[in-house]
Amino acid sequence: MTTLIQKLREERPLIHCITNIVVANFQANGLLALGASPVMADAIEEAAEIAAVSSCTVLNTGTLKKDTVTSMLLAGKSANQQGIPVVLDPVGAGATAFRKEAILRILKEVDVMLIRCNAGELAAIAGVDWRFKGVDAGEGEADITALAEEVARTHNCVVAVTGPWDIVADQHGTSCVTGGHPLMSHLTGAGCLLSAVAGAFLAVAEEDPFNAVTTALAFYKKAGEKAAEHASGPGDFKIHFLNALYALEEDVIQDCQFIRQPQGNDKGMTLS
Amino acid sequence: MTTLIQKLREERPLIHCITNIVVANFQANGLLALGASPVMADAIEEAAEIAAVSSCTVLNTGTLKKDTVTSMLLAGKSANQQGIPVVLDPVGAGATAFRKEAILRILKEVDVMLIRCNAGELAAIAGVDWRFKGVDAGEGEADITALAEEVARTHNCVVAVTGPWDIVADQHGTSCVTGGHPLMSHLTGAGCLLSAVAGAFLAVAEEDPFNAVTTALAFYKKAGEKAAEHASGPGDFKIHFLNALYALEEDVIQDCQFIRQPQGNDKGMTLS
Amino acid sequence: MTTLIQKLREERPLIHCITNIVVANFQANGLLALGASPVMADAIEEAAEIAAVSSCTVLNTGTLKKDTVTSMLLAGKSANQQGIPVVLDPVGAGATAFRKEAILRILKEVDVMLIRCNAGELAAIAGVDWRFKGVDAGEGEADITALAEEVARTHNCVVAVTGPWDIVADQHGTSCVTGGHPLMSHLTGAGCLLSAVAGAFLAVAEEDPFNAVTTALAFYKKAGEKAAEHASGPGDFKIHFLNALYALEEDVIQDCQFIRQPQGNDKGMTLS
Repeated sequence: MTTLIQKLREERPLIHCITNIVVANFQANGLLALGASPVMADAIEEAAEIAAVSSCTVLNTGTLKKDTVTSMLLAGKSANQQGIPVVLDPVGAGATAFRKEAILRILKEVDVMLIRCNAGELAAIAGVDWRFKGVDAGEGEADITALAEEVARTHNCVVAVTGPWDIVADQHGTSCVTGGHPLMSHLTGAGCLLSAVAGAFLAVAEEDPFNAVTTALAFYKKAGEKAAEHASGPGDFKIHFLNALYALEEDVIQDCQFIRQPQGNDKGMTLS
Repeated sequence: MTTLIQKLREERPLIHCITNIVVANFQANGLLALGASPVMADAIEEAAEIAAVSSCTVLNTGTLKKDTVTSMLLAGKSANQQGIPVVLDPVGAGATAFRKEAILRILKEVDVMLIRCNAGELAAIAGVDWRFKGVDAGEGEADITALAEEVARTHNCVVAVTGPWDIVADQHGTSCVTGGHPLMSHLTGAGCLLSAVAGAFLAVAEEDPFNAVTTALAFYKKAGEKAAEHASGPGDFKIHFLNALYALEEDVIQDCQFIRQPQGNDKGMTLS
Repeated sequence: MTTLIQKLREERPLIHCITNIVVANFQANGLLALGASPVMADAIEEAAEIAAVSSCTVLNTGTLKKDTVTSMLLAGKSANQQGIPVVLDPVGAGATAFRKEAILRILKEVDVMLIRCNAGELAAIAGVDWRFKGVDAGEGEADITALAEEVARTHNCVVAVTGPWDIVADQHGTSCVTGGHPLMSHLTGAGCLLSAVAGAFLAVAEEDPFNAVTTALAFYKKAGEKAAEHASGPGDFKIHFLNALYALEEDVIQDCQFIRQPQGNDKGMTLS
C-alpha cells in the first residue's frame, strides 16, 4: 500500500503559502525537504491565480498586513471554487484586534478544511478568556479539547491544536497525538511549517482529511524526535529537523494508534 | 545573585520587533535561543497594540518602507506611554535620504532608550562626513567615541556602536567591549540580532540600562567566540552561534571588567 | 593573474538586491560568504539611490508586489544611467499574468545585462507553450538552447538557463556548464542566490560578461558538489554550501573548459 508520504514525494504537490516574513524561508525549505513544492505568492494581483493551480493553499496570519487579508480572501475563494483544500494558520489570533477580525472574516468567507493553531489562538477564535502573549500559546484554564470540538463544529472543519501534545478534532470526534521534543518550541516557525506540511498531506489525501492531518502531525513529531537525537541546541536542531523531514518514511509512525473518541467524551485524549 | 540572563530565561520577555525581511527569521530564532519570546508585527493597524503588551520594542530600519515608518512611530509612542524600553537599530542610516529622514524623525518623536548601530550609521545620525557603503560600516575619520557621546547627550539615551570592538556611551561616560570573532561580520543580521538581544536584556533590567547593554554586548561577543571554536565557515558559524546563545551562562563574561570613563576622556576605551 | 573571485573578495562589491521574502536572508548570507557585500532595499523612495552607488543591481520577482515593480524600474534605470550591470531573475515568470507582464515591462524599459532563469521562466519570456508549475521549472518540449539564443538576441543580453545543466547564451554563441548536485534543487533560493552571485562576478568583470557568467555558474556548481560531499540531507547541505562559497578558490573550475559554440549550432552544448 502506498503511504501518504510516498504519494506526496511522487506527486510533489504545489503548496501555495500566503505567509509571513519570519518563516517564509523555513516553510519553503521544509516543504522542499518533505518532498512537496512550495510557491509563496501574496500579491492581490496574483493570489487567486496561484491558488487555482495549486494543490493546497495555506493562509498564515503572522506579520499580517491589510492588503494580505484581501489576498487571503481572494486565494481562499479561488481554492474553494476549484475544490482545493485551504489551511488556516491563525498566528497571533488573540494578539490584536486586527488579526482576530481578519481571521474571523476569513473563517466566514472561506471554506477552510483545517485550522492549525496553538491553544491561545484557539481560545481567541472561540472567543473565550485567555492570557495572550504575542504569538505564543499563552495561558488559560479552558478545556482545549472541548473548545477544539466546538470550533470544528462551528466552522465545519478539522481543528488541530498543537503543543507538547496535539489535539485533532472534527465534527465526529477527537484524537490526540503525542511525542515530539521540547527543542521544537525553540524553533521559530515550527507551527507555521507544520500547517504547510499538514496542507501537503491534505493535498494528496483523496479522502479522510482527519486521518491525513493526524498522520502529518505524528510524522512531524517523529521528525522532531529524530532531530533531537543529534542536536546539541536549537541551531543544529533546525538542520537535523530538515534532514529528518527529507529522510523519514511513514513507518516511523507505525506504532502510533490514534484512538478517535466521539465528541464530548472527555476521557478521550489517549494514544495507546 | 540572579544574573540578567537567568532572569531573562525565567521571565521570557516578549520582544516586539518591527524589522526587515532579511533578518526577521534569524532575529526570531536568536531571541528564542537566548530565552526570550519574539513577536514580529509591523502593520499600522496593530503596531501600537503589540508594543503596549511587550517588554521591549525594537525598531529596525533595514528594508524600510513608508508605511513601516508610521508603524514604528505608533509602536514607539505606545511603548513610551507604557514605560517600556525602545531600541533603535538605524540600519543604513547613511545609505539614503529616505532612511536618514525616517531615523531622525523617530529620534525626534520617540523616546529611545538605546541606539545600537555601526560607525557609519552613527556618523549619519550625527551628521558628519563619511564614506557610506550600503548597510556596512563604511569608512571615515571621525572620533567614534566622541561622536557616540555627543549622540548619547543629544538624544538622552545609551548609544552602542558595535564592530571589532564596541563603544557604549551615555550622558555619564563610556565603556568599551572587546572580543568577538571576525566570522560575525560574515553573518547577515548579526548587528540586527544584537539590537534585539540588547532589548531583551533591557527588558529584564530593573535599573541601569548602561550596565544591561554592556552585559548584552559582552555576552554576545563571547557567544561569537564560542561559536568560532567549532565553525569551519560562516554556514556552520551561524548554527554554533545560535547554540551558544542557548547554552551560555553569564559567567562567560565574568572576566570582563568594563571601566567606565567619564565623557570627554579620550584615553578611555579600555577593558582590563 | 588575479582571478575573478580573488578580485571580488578584494573589492567586496556592493550588490543591491530587490528580492523576495523567501530568499532575502539566504541571498545576503550567500553574498557575504562569497566575499561580496549585500544591500537589500526595495522601497520606491530609495531604490534608485541605492542602485546608483552599488556595483550591480539584481531584480528578483519572487513574492512580487505592485510597488516593487515600480522600485525595480527605478533601480534598473538608475543603474543603467551609471553604467552598472543589472541582473534579472524572473522568478515564476509563467506562474501568473501579473509576473509575466511585470517582467516583460522591465525587459522593455531597463537594459538588462543578464537574465538568470529556469526553463519554464525562459519559455514564459519567449512566449512559448509550457506546463508551468508555480516557481518550478515545469515541463515542456521546447529547444531550450534555441530559446535562450533567441531571448539573448531579442533582449541583447546574456541568458543563463540553469538546472541539472546550465545553458549560457548571448548574441554570439552558447556554452554549457555541467556539474552540481541534486541536493541543490532541495534548497529554496538556490537559483535566486545564483543570480546574485553571477551579479557579483559581473560587478568585478571589466569586460566579457559572458565569461564572468559562465565562471560564476561553474564556481557555483563546484560549491554544490563540495557541499554534497559532507551533507546528509538538505538541512546541512545549505550549511556546507555557504561554507564552500566562503572557502573555494577559482582553481576548482580549472578543469572546466567551456567550448562556446556559435548560435544555431545545435550540437553545441558540450563541456570537455
